[in-house]
Amino acid sequence: MARLFSVFSLRNLLVLSLALNVSLILRVLYEKESGVISGLSLDNRREALRTDSMPSEAHATQREHLSMRSSSSSSSTVDSNGRDRVINLDHGDPTMYERYWQQTGDKSTILIPGWQSMSYFSDAGSLCWFLEPEFAKEIFRLHKVVGNAVTEDRYIVVGTGSTQLYQAVLYALSPLDAAEPLSVVSAAPYYSSYPLITDCLKSGLYKWAGDAQSFNKEGPYIELVTSPNNPDGFVRQSVVNKSGGILVHDLAYYWPQYSPIAAAADHDIMLFTVSKSTGHAGMRIGWALVKDEEVAKKMVKYVELNTIGVSKDSQLRAAKVLQVVTDGCKYPPSKEGSLFDFAAHLMEERWKLLRAAVRQSGLFTLPEFPPGSCRFLNISFAPRPAFAWLKCEAPIEDCEAFLRSNNILTRSGIHFGVGPQYVRISMLDRDENYDEFVERLSTIHLRQSMHVDETAE
Amino acid sequence: MARLFSVFSLRNLLVLSLALNVSLILRVLYEKESGVISGLSLDNRREALRTDSMPSEAHATQREHLSMRSSSSSSSTVDSNGRDRVINLDHGDPTMYERYWQQTGDKSTILIPGWQSMSYFSDAGSLCWFLEPEFAKEIFRLHKVVGNAVTEDRYIVVGTGSTQLYQAVLYALSPLDAAEPLSVVSAAPYYSSYPLITDCLKSGLYKWAGDAQSFNKEGPYIELVTSPNNPDGFVRQSVVNKSGGILVHDLAYYWPQYSPIAAAADHDIMLFTVSKSTGHAGMRIGWALVKDEEVAKKMVKYVELNTIGVSKDSQLRAAKVLQVVTDGCKYPPSKEGSLFDFAAHLMEERWKLLRAAVRQSGLFTLPEFPPGSCRFLNISFAPRPAFAWLKCEAPIEDCEAFLRSNNILTRSGIHFGVGPQYVRISMLDRDENYDEFVERLSTIHLRQSMHVDETAE
Repeated sequence: MARLFSVFSLRNLLVLSLALNVSLILRVLYEKESGVISGLSLDNRREALRTDSMPSEAHATQREHLSMRSSSSSSSTVDSNGRDRVINLDHGDPTMYERYWQQTGDKSTILIPGWQSMSYFSDAGSLCWFLEPEFAKEIFRLHKVVGNAVTEDRYIVVGTGSTQLYQAVLYALSPLDAAEPLSVVSAAPYYSSYPLITDCLKSGLYKWAGDAQSFNKEGPYIELVTSPNNPDGFVRQSVVNKSGGILVHDLAYYWPQYSPIAAAADHDIMLFTVSKSTGHAGMRIGWALVKDEEVAKKMVKYVELNTIGVSKDSQLRAAKVLQVVTDGCKYPPSKEGSLFDFAAHLMEERWKLLRAAVRQSGLFTLPEFPPGSCRFLNISFAPRPAFAWLKCEAPIEDCEAFLRSNNILTRSGIHFGVGPQYVRISMLDRDENYDEFVERLSTIHLRQSMHVDETAE
Repeated sequence: MARLFSVFSLRNLLVLSLALNVSLILRVLYEKESGVISGLSLDNRREALRTDSMPSEAHATQREHLSMRSSSSSSSTVDSNGRDRVINLDHGDPTMYERYWQQTGDKSTILIPGWQSMSYFSDAGSLCWFLEPEFAKEIFRLHKVVGNAVTEDRYIVVGTGSTQLYQAVLYALSPLDAAEPLSVVSAAPYYSSYPLITDCLKSGLYKWAGDAQSFNKEGPYIELVTSPNNPDGFVRQSVVNKSGGILVHDLAYYWPQYSPIAAAADHDIMLFTVSKSTGHAGMRIGWALVKDEEVAKKMVKYVELNTIGVSKDSQLRAAKVLQVVTDGCKYPPSKEGSLFDFAAHLMEERWKLLRAAVRQSGLFTLPEFPPGSCRFLNISFAPRPAFAWLKCEAPIEDCEAFLRSNNILTRSGIHFGVGPQYVRISMLDRDENYDEFVERLSTIHLRQSMHVDETAE
């Protein structure tokens, strides 16, 4: 080393060191750029393609999509206030969460090399052989920190969204040799997709049997209990009081941003999804907590037959996202707070704005919720559901058509087993759409809208 | 600047520069480590958990998994050659491709930030609203460069593997108001999952009707044409010669590593999957090329009802992987060649080894394929299918049981609509498993195996 110093002058060494600096800086810049090329640029291009009137959730039929396109580019529905922009709140696309995830930066980014997760199998020895162990671990951690579900002595079954798991449950609970299909019921208003999914293949194993409150058939049945309920947001319990029933709890909305967490849910079959908990609908990842081993095995069998497992990439990403959420609850970041802080605050604000707009318009009513104590947020508050279940008062008969004439797309009550005076409205859209919706709702004039409605006919 | 130099001595500047070097080096090291934390370490942990006897593809029932586990840890099947390690070639897990993708390095890596792809929608205005435009673009590019399918005037429908697309096709082609379920047929030996998937929900829309060669019912039907065929590798055309039939072409194996590309396939409904083309089974991504708009729309509707679209993360990753494959064909990298070069070479080698082992054993036979000219590789060669359709000769009656007694797990011919003298064997496993399999097959002794078989009973 001493010899080295005798050969090179101080000036030589400085030049060498500066050159090394330049090369290191170039490397840092290059690596940043590679990151952009491999993932971000794709997204930027896609973002540029997106329009504000983009639809959400996925019960839109192709026809709905096409009609939305034509209505958004049509000028026939422009009214005197320039309300020609279609606001689509028909689906529950949770894009309001994008803002939170942007704030988390690199913490929530994942990197997947080309050679990773190529096999069909995640954990060949496990009951759910396509469940990524990291994702399972993060599910347990999240439920433990939030306290919304008992996970002890439960099997996790992962699904391509909770929609697939709903079908897996139907398959698992239906006897293969029954004389007639098993009845599936849920109290109205029920989630509009339940009857469609249940009956779409005319299965001989199960059959939609409508409103649980009027169900009076003898024999075994499945009762779906969605709590908090989609569409109306109320906390629910089973309503059929008969023997031979099996309960399935859809707890997609049992998270502290929507409803007080009163206790850890402790049911035999509980369904959850990232779409409504973290806002990652595009991942198509849900999970079931299942008590009975045989039921869990049959659910696994269904997912195997239906899609040979569940995307590993999305499971790995979901594991990362859940990890960030749980860490954010345990060690809240100073600036943005936990995901639940962010979303609870936003939902509270949105519901205040909506109730004010509804009061101002005088044309609608909304459900009222009693406040409850939340063991996670340590406060008492009234539910602020992911959907608004809006009722149009007389003389408006068709609420969906009335709002559509104001370029607000919602889902009619008829799809939920009740009348057309109700609509379901997503509360989870991006800020600009939500704000525009509330503003428009507060200033809707009955006569003007009716007029537009008539001329459109 | 001159003033700066006058304040600091050369020695000061050198110290400053060296400090900057240290900080840059630390940053480079840190970023490397972060990369490992966000993705690679997960995989390493998983790799460490993997056993060589890991199962593949996903038609293993839970029972099969459990029995595989117990057999792999059992010592009752150890024979005199120490053949106690179970080699599972029952499924078509394409792990042989891992080696290629490791060689591609960063080129095939993707990075997904937490805020990306949160919406249900990929392209709201498009017929297939959950199809990522980048993935669609890469599908077109790949087919164009390989020349294996006509893409002009076709709709792309993406699915959670081609398995989901198969069900989407059945849903799309079955009339909703038919008096009885539509018959679904395929010539034996047919893919073992077809009957299971078709009948698992006892659908009133469609019904498995068995071997197409003996199908003689009047009225409409669907004929599945798998070409090259799973399990036997032969190029196929439809065999039912009646009116009222609709053809569905499963072209999962119509890639140049398996079969000469004679011409661009030009059928009404064609199914493909990344599992067998690039080896990414864990992604659960397939695509359909569909001529008729109404059929494509109904397929989209099924995927919407079944899983509300397809994982965006896996579609983005599939786009990246297909891009690397196509670029590798257009501008072949000097070292590893294109994916098809790699896989074609490997498959050729494996089939040579297998045929030599079969000759040496004297107990089995394999299908013989005529060579054909490949417009992609510009050579003539005989097919080297992804599965070996092995026949045990007399006196062996149950080929699957015979091989199982040698700790080689395969799938019995009875699942493919033929007899137990046949088995299907995956040719796509990792090198160490494949090599061990061929070595074991070449030295199986009839008497010894029969003896082991008897004592096991």
